[in-house]
Amino acid sequence: MRNADDGMPNGERTLRFTIQYDGSGLVGWQRQANGPSVQGLLENVLSTIEGSPVTVHGAGRTDAGVHAIAQVAHARVRIGHDPKTMMRAMNANLPETVRVTDVGVAADDFHARFSARAKTYEYRIWNAAVLPPFIRLYVWHVPQALDVAAMNVAADAVTGEHDFAAFQGAGTLVHSTVRRVIRAAWRDQTRDEPLTFEISGEGFLRHMVRALVGTMIEIGRGARAPHDIERLIASRDRHAAGRTAPANGLFLVDVEY
Amino acid sequence: MRNADDGMPNGERTLRFTIQYDGSGLVGWQRQANGPSVQGLLENVLSTIEGSPVTVHGAGRTDAGVHAIAQVAHARVRIGHDPKTMMRAMNANLPETVRVTDVGVAADDFHARFSARAKTYEYRIWNAAVLPPFIRLYVWHVPQALDVAAMNVAADAVTGEHDFAAFQGAGTLVHSTVRRVIRAAWRDQTRDEPLTFEISGEGFLRHMVRALVGTMIEIGRGARAPHDIERLIASRDRHAAGRTAPANGLFLVDVEY
Repeated sequence: MRNADDGMPNGERTLRFTIQYDGSGLVGWQRQANGPSVQGLLENVLSTIEGSPVTVHGAGRTDAGVHAIAQVAHARVRIGHDPKTMMRAMNANLPETVRVTDVGVAADDFHARFSARAKTYEYRIWNAAVLPPFIRLYVWHVPQALDVAAMNVAADAVTGEHDFAAFQGAGTLVHSTVRRVIRAAWRDQTRDEPLTFEISGEGFLRHMVRALVGTMIEIGRGARAPHDIERLIASRDRHAAGRTAPANGLFLVDVEY
Repeated sequence: MRNADDGMPNGERTLRFTIQYDGSGLVGWQRQANGPSVQGLLENVLSTIEGSPVTVHGAGRTDAGVHAIAQVAHARVRIGHDPKTMMRAMNANLPETVRVTDVGVAADDFHARFSARAKTYEYRIWNAAVLPPFIRLYVWHVPQALDVAAMNVAADAVTGEHDFAAFQGAGTLVHSTVRRVIRAAWRDQTRDEPLTFEISGEGFLRHMVRALVGTMIEIGRGARAPHDIERLIASRDRHAAGRTAPANGLFLVDVEY
């Protein structure tokens, strides 16, 4: 049985959500048994509103402690609420650390993950002796002097299509470790803004951004040469690259469709 | 016995500290039995470094949950550390929510509280439907539309010397409830900055800034007329004024000497 109004079986519509979250106390995007996840929180709230189980699909499966300014997700629901009412109902039942900032009706075949053309992440670093208490959960504190120009030479070398096997989290299995980085650059710290690495790509390997940042910070500190990163990429050896930067500096900032 | 180098008995010097803190998990400035206070944390750290009890005096005794960008404090210590080393030692032993941002040697008779000529507080409000998770601990969320021009008429009326008895926390005893406000003004919200009330004065009554903000928000929402605040001041009646705004929007931002 199809409903002519929305073109989906059983009167279902595809809703698209934009979500902001503080990952500090969360186990990450994906539903897990060991603590609150963004997916789990959203599914619980939507299932309550819907009166039956709802599955939520996210664009990026952010790890524990990683934040999002604009994660995108979708779900198929029957409930007839208009998007504004839906957003209000969801926010009223979510913890303050997770906010729905937009709800819209998407095309029937919209898929938050598979329809995404590019994602942008930011990695934020506070590069000064003293870490202000108010940003302590949202930056990696690196007190040592950094050569940001050298870090930008490395960022340039990362741009383009490469096999990023050396920058993949241990124990992950994917068909290919080749990814295309569209844009990668460091913005220097100002009085109010942290030192920020912005990277856009069609997709990323697990821990890839944090492993790149960890390696580029070693370059910034002078422990590696800027062009070392090309050799590291060629090595395809995770043990050759730098350590993975902490989760709490990473933000998913944009998903393009 | 006096030491010629520093002019104080027993080789004591007066150190002046600038301190930043996230008041979220603190019982306030003043040492108390029921939880961690800024004064208590600083006294514990300094007493450990000094090897004997040290008393710390703060410029402003901020309440539970109130933050500071630049609280000022002083203590008399014998320890010979240079200020930079002292700052490092203190920060290494304080929780990440409390940071010493400056240490200097002050005049022998410097007193953080009694030498202060003026203090500046900021009260921050997020005036939009959705509260971003990252600032939830540092603003009061007021989703209703606000007339900031009307709030600034009230701020103008507050400026100058007045009897602020109507804006004093219940149960406090002071010699006089007359205070001189040097400057008071609202700055409208921008994309990145909250709606902010900045107020400077020689001194403030307990809860005075928060009671003024609570009343001015009622003016902004149209529940009171802007010039009502003059009538409220004249009434000297705490029950006539608006409710006290929450602690977590308030920041001590500057102390002048």
